[in-house]
Amino acid sequence: MARVSSLLSFSLTLLVFLHGYTAQQFPNECQLEQLNALEPSHVLKSEAGRIEVWDHHAPQLRCSGVSFARYVIESKGLYLPSFVNTAKLSFVAQGQGLMGKVIPGCAETFQDSSVFQPREGRRQFEGQGEEEQSQFRDMHQKVEHIRSGDTIATTPGVAQWFYNEGQQPLVIVSVFDLASHQNQLDRNPRPFYLAGNNPQGQVWLQGREQGPQKNIFSGFGPEVIAQAFKIDLQTAQQLQNQQDNRGNIVRVKGPFGVIRPPLRGQRPQEEEREGNGLEETICSARSVDNLDDPSRADVYKPQLGYLSTLNSYDLPILRFIRLSALRGSIRQNAMVLPQWNANANAVLYVTDGEAQLQIVNDNGDRVFDGQVSQGQLIVVPQGFSVVKRATSDQFRWVEFKTNANAQINTLAGRTSVMRGLPLAVITNGFEISPEEAKRVKFNTLETTLTHSSGPASYGRPRMTTA
Amino acid sequence: MARVSSLLSFSLTLLVFLHGYTAQQFPNECQLEQLNALEPSHVLKSEAGRIEVWDHHAPQLRCSGVSFARYVIESKGLYLPSFVNTAKLSFVAQGQGLMGKVIPGCAETFQDSSVFQPREGRRQFEGQGEEEQSQFRDMHQKVEHIRSGDTIATTPGVAQWFYNEGQQPLVIVSVFDLASHQNQLDRNPRPFYLAGNNPQGQVWLQGREQGPQKNIFSGFGPEVIAQAFKIDLQTAQQLQNQQDNRGNIVRVKGPFGVIRPPLRGQRPQEEEREGNGLEETICSARSVDNLDDPSRADVYKPQLGYLSTLNSYDLPILRFIRLSALRGSIRQNAMVLPQWNANANAVLYVTDGEAQLQIVNDNGDRVFDGQVSQGQLIVVPQGFSVVKRATSDQFRWVEFKTNANAQINTLAGRTSVMRGLPLAVITNGFEISPEEAKRVKFNTLETTLTHSSGPASYGRPRMTTA
Amino acid sequence: MARVSSLLSFSLTLLVFLHGYTAQQFPNECQLEQLNALEPSHVLKSEAGRIEVWDHHAPQLRCSGVSFARYVIESKGLYLPSFVNTAKLSFVAQGQGLMGKVIPGCAETFQDSSVFQPREGRRQFEGQGEEEQSQFRDMHQKVEHIRSGDTIATTPGVAQWFYNEGQQPLVIVSVFDLASHQNQLDRNPRPFYLAGNNPQGQVWLQGREQGPQKNIFSGFGPEVIAQAFKIDLQTAQQLQNQQDNRGNIVRVKGPFGVIRPPLRGQRPQEEEREGNGLEETICSARSVDNLDDPSRADVYKPQLGYLSTLNSYDLPILRFIRLSALRGSIRQNAMVLPQWNANANAVLYVTDGEAQLQIVNDNGDRVFDGQVSQGQLIVVPQGFSVVKRATSDQFRWVEFKTNANAQINTLAGRTSVMRGLPLAVITNGFEISPEEAKRVKFNTLETTLTHSSGPASYGRPRMTTA
Repeated sequence: MARVSSLLSFSLTLLVFLHGYTAQQFPNECQLEQLNALEPSHVLKSEAGRIEVWDHHAPQLRCSGVSFARYVIESKGLYLPSFVNTAKLSFVAQGQGLMGKVIPGCAETFQDSSVFQPREGRRQFEGQGEEEQSQFRDMHQKVEHIRSGDTIATTPGVAQWFYNEGQQPLVIVSVFDLASHQNQLDRNPRPFYLAGNNPQGQVWLQGREQGPQKNIFSGFGPEVIAQAFKIDLQTAQQLQNQQDNRGNIVRVKGPFGVIRPPLRGQRPQEEEREGNGLEETICSARSVDNLDDPSRADVYKPQLGYLSTLNSYDLPILRFIRLSALRGSIRQNAMVLPQWNANANAVLYVTDGEAQLQIVNDNGDRVFDGQVSQGQLIVVPQGFSVVKRATSDQFRWVEFKTNANAQINTLAGRTSVMRGLPLAVITNGFEISPEEAKRVKFNTLETTLTHSSGPASYGRPRMTTA
Repeated sequence: MARVSSLLSFSLTLLVFLHGYTAQQFPNECQLEQLNALEPSHVLKSEAGRIEVWDHHAPQLRCSGVSFARYVIESKGLYLPSFVNTAKLSFVAQGQGLMGKVIPGCAETFQDSSVFQPREGRRQFEGQGEEEQSQFRDMHQKVEHIRSGDTIATTPGVAQWFYNEGQQPLVIVSVFDLASHQNQLDRNPRPFYLAGNNPQGQVWLQGREQGPQKNIFSGFGPEVIAQAFKIDLQTAQQLQNQQDNRGNIVRVKGPFGVIRPPLRGQRPQEEEREGNGLEETICSARSVDNLDDPSRADVYKPQLGYLSTLNSYDLPILRFIRLSALRGSIRQNAMVLPQWNANANAVLYVTDGEAQLQIVNDNGDRVFDGQVSQGQLIVVPQGFSVVKRATSDQFRWVEFKTNANAQINTLAGRTSVMRGLPLAVITNGFEISPEEAKRVKFNTLETTLTHSSGPASYGRPRMTTA
Repeated sequence: MARVSSLLSFSLTLLVFLHGYTAQQFPNECQLEQLNALEPSHVLKSEAGRIEVWDHHAPQLRCSGVSFARYVIESKGLYLPSFVNTAKLSFVAQGQGLMGKVIPGCAETFQDSSVFQPREGRRQFEGQGEEEQSQFRDMHQKVEHIRSGDTIATTPGVAQWFYNEGQQPLVIVSVFDLASHQNQLDRNPRPFYLAGNNPQGQVWLQGREQGPQKNIFSGFGPEVIAQAFKIDLQTAQQLQNQQDNRGNIVRVKGPFGVIRPPLRGQRPQEEEREGNGLEETICSARSVDNLDDPSRADVYKPQLGYLSTLNSYDLPILRFIRLSALRGSIRQNAMVLPQWNANANAVLYVTDGEAQLQIVNDNGDRVFDGQVSQGQLIVVPQGFSVVKRATSDQFRWVEFKTNANAQINTLAGRTSVMRGLPLAVITNGFEISPEEAKRVKFNTLETTLTHSSGPASYGRPRMTTA
């Protein structure tokens, strides 16, 4: 009897298995019958902050070929330099700070100018008491101020660090494009740490025994590091952060002395920067733009909100990393007209408030109908239609799109697909009268944003434009 | 005993399974030892036509990363607007009609001009009796005449409709490039319906419970549609086509009143079109070219037939969708010299007649040796060599290639690989005499087409050129 | 009892299986905890040489998406023309010879000029006694001299042959980019033979019954070949190499009479070549460059060695095939400073001597720590850091990189990531004093190469530049 039941359980296992196998042989990772608002699945705690990682094996993230993480850096927290194997697009959801990237082969264009302008230079470069006696002046690559709304493009393999200069936490969300050809490894996000470590390990990775994740120097023999850096063995061991349990976000003691430009708007003229012959190229390529300035919005309706897009026409480096972004901010009862992404998957992250979303798949099924609220993530795959209605005072979100020039198609409105169809197609397609078809085509005069509760009588076409 | 046999059957299952699994771990989908002429596996019937779908899981289609469908639209049939998640290249195999695409953000450049030229305009825009009283004039995006031989490029996410204006069925075949980076979902073709529905469901998809496929509006709540379009709830419900069982190809009652340009050759000057500032870009990009005009053939031999290619030099939008096409038409006993595709897979669809094909794989094995006839499909994967000989009065076909600039290499003929090799390589490689090698190199003077039964004595090189 | 143990073994099998299956569903082919120096797994013997194939299923090769082969062509050996379905980058590790490629549609620009300059032309074109009586002059596509250090780019589907003119073996190593979009088949390397055969079959392929691999002509019916080439049936059968057991590298009997240009440095002026209107394009695109000339090195230190890179700025065709190369040659005790590839996988092949390598993965684990010596291969995946120290008199290697413009980031040295970081990031990140941080940043003044055993006292920063 026991054997029979064993056999039975085997059969079942095998059936389940075979089913999975069949599904696998013809991968159908975008057969999404149900979407969910996603929250982080793993939290990596550090001394001065935490990294929250979304499970990139979640069906909607697998389908869209990306992974997602949120970095919460406390005041005076320093996210130590690391790089990843993918193109990355980040958005500063909250706070302000400093960001540095080290691009290989580029010159250290930020130099302490204390010799030339002793008073002023000293003021910008503080916290290095030692340079007093040795006349030492630091120099390093570009450091940039970042603040809420900044969207930051990072190419694969480029080390990046963040420092929180403000009082409130600095919150950065990042999308990693696993499916792009720029990721030459498998479809896993892999941060490489230059400093610090991650005692919890890369918990999001499967198929590997998980121990703590150490920094790169840990993997080399100390004597190799000593030889390479021409330093003593003790300092070499120090570079390995072996005894360090602060994680990858550490608290800075005392002032954080880096050479920094004045805040935006008071930026020095470009001519003042030291030239290295590479400046016209990748070294000086702009990689940050702010999407929170309504004066630069692409769609703006004072009563309803605004939308801003960032694509490779705005920020040419996006052509290289093949990602783009959209920032939206709408008020209570505003509706983003139903639309679909023609050539991209969209990863939508809510920064403030909440909204009601409906998402429809290729089969005409509603695969999502619910609330998304601050801190949640949802994917809108290519071709899936979505409508958004704010259900709080303010609903603000950022969408990362897997195309340098993502195109949307609206279903309703002045630039919509229905507007582009001849009346005869609409009357025959939906079996409605020409009068009804005219209303379908012309009643909504807005392009993207409208009131989710409009005037009562929609019966006749309005003749004014919005 | 029963248990033992159970165990045995388990073992066998598991073995089969393990074998499949191993094959899967190192996918070998192009280990093709046998090709077949393929016919449609699914037929979706509609009121005024049918859609015939090839099984994209067939080994040769999986290897080439494409799917394929044939649209048969009866007289007065309207293929309702839909879009797909992939780049698409279509060929009009038979008939004539109208085609419209709605490109997001582009202006409605087709407007009824009845006010300015009342008599003439009215003639072009008929069947909308209602506009008489309201002075209403429709406007919509570009509508184009299509006819047999037209090759139509469509970008992902762009809605498209067809209307059969002629008396005979309008037959369109389309290839969908699943493997391209422009498809950001999995490797399944997914039509999204704007209108109409598909009661049989997406039968070609695996791993999903199949119900009827509805249009996009069906997935939204009617009140959302009413709000978005500012229409009443009843019209909103009408947009969902829920009670509609006409499928996706419907019969137009009465005249089909769209604004249309004169037939080709009488096209208005470009200057007459309304400008919207986007016209120089994707909005006015040419996406149709005709391959059936022998006067534009790339290879033409009056006694044998002609070949026409369409690549991104002819039609720049192909650079974007990364597909190209070749149209061939040869007479009885004509032979297309053996050749291979250097940088593309080719999907060959027979539009008329039949031919004898031999296809050879990388192992030197003949993987196909047989007839292909009208309505059949066969794949010639990258590098595989193929020779075609017409066996009916006329053999006509279209080849879709998965590269914007597919290159062929011929084995024999004036521009062939053998011609490019030094004699010494040929004599040593095949152990033949220099005299024989000269005949191999120089006897065939044609480049692509030749008689499949030539003169009896091939012994001496001919000194005239063909 | 037997049944119980059967069940047990089943359970275990199934568990192993399920484990493998899970790993598969989320492919983790770059979860590399251990790298190995790889040697060829298959040897295909021919009359005048051998082809050594690395198993492309080895984890590190699967992760990097390439396959690798070594061609050893004996003196007077002719590697018969073949093509592959992938882009290919080759390096001549030893010897010298001739190389020919046949690019479809390009003209036979190499012609015997004996009529115009009877004496001189005859000297260049020897071994074809027959042309005396018939005034026959051969013509064929470009033939190039190749020699040790030459790096050769080949596009997919283009037939190529090699001939060893020297006394020592001609050794060529090639990397095949399976993961690139230019390979439109599955991830297997597939040589297609125009002549010759391979009696051992494509042993590196799984999932197919392995018989001998024949040439393309073998797959066609002899009567088809006779018709296509307008030759007799006997010659057609001869083209099939059916009775031939020489393999794909054959010994040339007598002189090898091809039209060849003078050796490099005495190349005729470009004007002398016959024009065909395509010459400015792919037909005349340069595809060979030599990396063994120290006078063209990118990094050169007389006491230590040199490094030369070849990317798409040097050889524009690399932009198309998306591969690049690096040639390194260092002396005993020289060290290549630790570095990682930002945007590429690197396949490192040792041509001479041996070295000690340490490679570190994303987890900070040392995944390789050992010797690599002549003839061995090792992969350094994207982002993985590597340090190399010569342990023989001379260590020379070539690295193939899966990006047309592969970028490296050094950890130490004058253009390193540490140099680009502000001091405050280093002091806080590694918990070291500003004095120590300065030494870490500034002590190593070289960019790429240094002595692996430096001066004893590293304590104070040096003020001179190297």
